[in-house]
Amino acid sequence: MSTRVIELKRSVFESNDERAELLRKELKEKKIFLLNLMSSPGSGKTTTLKATIAALKDKYNIGVMEADIDSDVDAKKIADTGVKAIQLHTGGMCHLDADMTRQGLDALVEGDVDLAILENVGNLVCPAEFDTGASKNAMILSVPEGHDKPLKYPLMFSICDVVLINKIDVAPYFDFDMEKCKEYIHMRNPKAEIIPICAKTGEGVDVFAKWLSDQVDEWKA
Amino acid sequence: MSTRVIELKRSVFESNDERAELLRKELKEKKIFLLNLMSSPGSGKTTTLKATIAALKDKYNIGVMEADIDSDVDAKKIADTGVKAIQLHTGGMCHLDADMTRQGLDALVEGDVDLAILENVGNLVCPAEFDTGASKNAMILSVPEGHDKPLKYPLMFSICDVVLINKIDVAPYFDFDMEKCKEYIHMRNPKAEIIPICAKTGEGVDVFAKWLSDQVDEWKA
Repeated sequence: MSTRVIELKRSVFESNDERAELLRKELKEKKIFLLNLMSSPGSGKTTTLKATIAALKDKYNIGVMEADIDSDVDAKKIADTGVKAIQLHTGGMCHLDADMTRQGLDALVEGDVDLAILENVGNLVCPAEFDTGASKNAMILSVPEGHDKPLKYPLMFSICDVVLINKIDVAPYFDFDMEKCKEYIHMRNPKAEIIPICAKTGEGVDVFAKWLSDQVDEWKA
Repeated sequence: MSTRVIELKRSVFESNDERAELLRKELKEKKIFLLNLMSSPGSGKTTTLKATIAALKDKYNIGVMEADIDSDVDAKKIADTGVKAIQLHTGGMCHLDADMTRQGLDALVEGDVDLAILENVGNLVCPAEFDTGASKNAMILSVPEGHDKPLKYPLMFSICDVVLINKIDVAPYFDFDMEKCKEYIHMRNPKAEIIPICAKTGEGVDVFAKWLSDQVDEWKA
């Protein structure tokens, strides 16, 4: 499947929070669930999405927006799974806001998508500051990054509904303390779901797919 | 050794480029070399610095500024090496500019530092957009992040004088193509030095220490 590249325009609206609430309300009315997936560069967002799509593509009409400063390698990988994928180019911007997300959704949603996923720019800082209008926020922290990240990037952890801890297969080769990590995450956000996974082997992806499916069904109810 | 925490103020100056040039000129006159070290969260900046300090601390008076949004875990780790370390808190900002760097240097440099190192906020996007006034820019890409990162974060790779490829000890457990990675980096920046290292075991750190030492000596000459 070929991929389409959208060059995003910078937003001209003053209040991103208002624009985000408006988008969220519209999506709710249209029964479209939007997941905003964030992480550092290289934490495994695209691989996790591929495994999640495999688990859910018979149940939902999935569409994926891959945001990057440059390149379209991710959208191509997602398109290989058979779902609709578009590439968003941010023009150097370090995050997406609600209006940029809307530009992507306008290109992605043509009638039948009910689970839209935004893979945000790889960045633990700026994307946390801009509400995209998503129904839920998810993030990935990978084992090689270290268990101390919730101490250093507090906002990102505090705004996410679910934190996936990826690359648990390589845990034996890193000084990663899973219990400390969970403690630090809950220090920032007591309500965060924490799901350890290995996107490469598929371990734990069923747990995340179940969580996501529950959220989508509740949103559409 | 105890660490000092500096809460940075947002810059009030319009032209960061001018402020950066001014700072660089002043540092040159004072024979202080400033290295700006950047990477994604968890790529191993602090571990690399510790190994580099061990190699160079008899030759230079080293001072380190650890920039983070929150916490002082990194400054404490660096202070354990016996060199001067201060923690800079960015107040949520995703990068440091020249004036914020100057605020840190004012606190760090009291007479005798000739090699100052700024560990920037973990972020492959925004820090690349703001000249800190550093003598040289360095970045770390770690093996678990993947060899495709120069395709996705072009500006960061294009402004760095040296790219360290860290965590080469775990390469057997990841799909990381070193030759492709070097090709992509040189596509962005033909002049970039590329040095594979393992900060944890010390492998390759001597090559980086030699590179850094050459730069400092040339700067002070």
